[in-house]
Amino acid sequence: MISDRKFSGLPWPTGTTKVFAVIGDPIDHSLSPVLLNRAFTEANVDAVFVALGVSRSGLGKAMDGVRALGISGLSVTMPHKEAIIQHLDRVTDRSKRLGSVNCVFWEGGKLVGDSTDGPALVESLQADLKDEIAGRSVLILGTGGAARAIVLALADAKVKEVVVVGRNSDAVERVLDLGGGIARKGVAGDAAHVDIIINATSVGMADTEGSGLTPLSSGLIKQNHFVCDIIYFPLTTPLLKHSLEAGAKVSNGIGMLTFQAARAFTIWTGKKAPVSGMLEAANLVARGRAGSH
Amino acid sequence: MISDRKFSGLPWPTGTTKVFAVIGDPIDHSLSPVLLNRAFTEANVDAVFVALGVSRSGLGKAMDGVRALGISGLSVTMPHKEAIIQHLDRVTDRSKRLGSVNCVFWEGGKLVGDSTDGPALVESLQADLKDEIAGRSVLILGTGGAARAIVLALADAKVKEVVVVGRNSDAVERVLDLGGGIARKGVAGDAAHVDIIINATSVGMADTEGSGLTPLSSGLIKQNHFVCDIIYFPLTTPLLKHSLEAGAKVSNGIGMLTFQAARAFTIWTGKKAPVSGMLEAANLVARGRAGSH
Repeated sequence: MISDRKFSGLPWPTGTTKVFAVIGDPIDHSLSPVLLNRAFTEANVDAVFVALGVSRSGLGKAMDGVRALGISGLSVTMPHKEAIIQHLDRVTDRSKRLGSVNCVFWEGGKLVGDSTDGPALVESLQADLKDEIAGRSVLILGTGGAARAIVLALADAKVKEVVVVGRNSDAVERVLDLGGGIARKGVAGDAAHVDIIINATSVGMADTEGSGLTPLSSGLIKQNHFVCDIIYFPLTTPLLKHSLEAGAKVSNGIGMLTFQAARAFTIWTGKKAPVSGMLEAANLVARGRAGSH
Repeated sequence: MISDRKFSGLPWPTGTTKVFAVIGDPIDHSLSPVLLNRAFTEANVDAVFVALGVSRSGLGKAMDGVRALGISGLSVTMPHKEAIIQHLDRVTDRSKRLGSVNCVFWEGGKLVGDSTDGPALVESLQADLKDEIAGRSVLILGTGGAARAIVLALADAKVKEVVVVGRNSDAVERVLDLGGGIARKGVAGDAAHVDIIINATSVGMADTEGSGLTPLSSGLIKQNHFVCDIIYFPLTTPLLKHSLEAGAKVSNGIGMLTFQAARAFTIWTGKKAPVSGMLEAANLVARGRAGSH
């Protein structure tokens, strides 16, 4: 039971404030605290969200600690999304299929894990498209955890077709298994036949080997494409820059990040998330970070 | 290393905010979060203080969790002040003598426990007296953990004499052992010969068996006494009410509580605590609580 937060002019948090956390390593750059604290404040929920650095080897004791310290819920990021499953009482069907958890909540005294990245990406896309995604055709670049989560959610959202592009055939097959019959293996050139292109690789992410690179040749992007990059650092990757130059509509990773946090908020509080305020906060931080780079 | 908090208009806490906590059971009514969050904010320290409920049986796993989750420091309250010692790497000499810890900090990768209640009471008394306590004579009511901590600190502060009043002779002896030769067993009537009277029992505390009662007959309190009650709920116990009626100067438990939090702040941050702001916040909450009672 989480109380309404009393805006009394007193210092906050107080003794009654519920505590939520994101665990991962590294964790300093997580935007989750800013997103969730904005949401808790705007929705008048007496809860605070903090970032806790947990090493790979410390995960088991950290999860015992989450129980013993009465932490009210968790967001989970790298490198714990798979390993955390063995420390939970239950995971949702979606998490079981993906072998991945990014949101942990209490249900009847049990710690339960869910994976909200895929549905968050679909929600974000639909918000940007101002339309349902059902019936569209999608090309997805990458075969990692993000690609798997997105393909499962796209299939649930009844898209017409998902073309999966990746270099490792086994990994591609494992993604296709999640596609419920609408996914097929493809090549970059298949971009010509789809409505939506999603980059689910890390190519183009700042401070990585792929920084400054694009996962798709610019000549393949047309004006009628909607191009979505799940990266948000930088806010405009080379892929999105080329897409804008081609006249395509684009969205960056702030949407998936925000809708994922919004889903966590709703799971934890039972309330509708104040999404526009959360988007504003995420963009503010991300822009500040890009500026300081 | 704790950074300065950037007041950027963004939601707070962020991913870089250090996390401190008070553990105990029950914990909802703890004033520590309000005191420490006021201090962190006023001193521009990027840290947040939360209350975490930890049961007696959960203490071991909670402490493993504190390490694995990277909690930056702890305040410790009932029922863990003694039991926590076995879960720490080291305790200070003072904590060793008292068998009690109320403040936990990191030092060279080790978790260290200290007991700050006694020095906090002495600091608070000196602030109220506007003078050193050295050379004064003190009567102390009670033989529990608080009395023990206070007598040790009074001896360190070179008071002339401490008269200990308690019903259990063995418990009185254990308090006298901490008095460094200046403490002796006494009776309530010895109040006539002392400068300062301290109630370190729970008699007079709201919501307990001793609510509405006083630990010292009102006829024993004179105008030249300074009477200190370590209780702060209610802010004016029957003992303090009688003392005011006798024309004595008084102080309640807000002082010890605040100076204890101020000591924790300094241990954790290396900075001087903003004591007057903390006192203001503590009084504000305590008055609000009394009003809602």
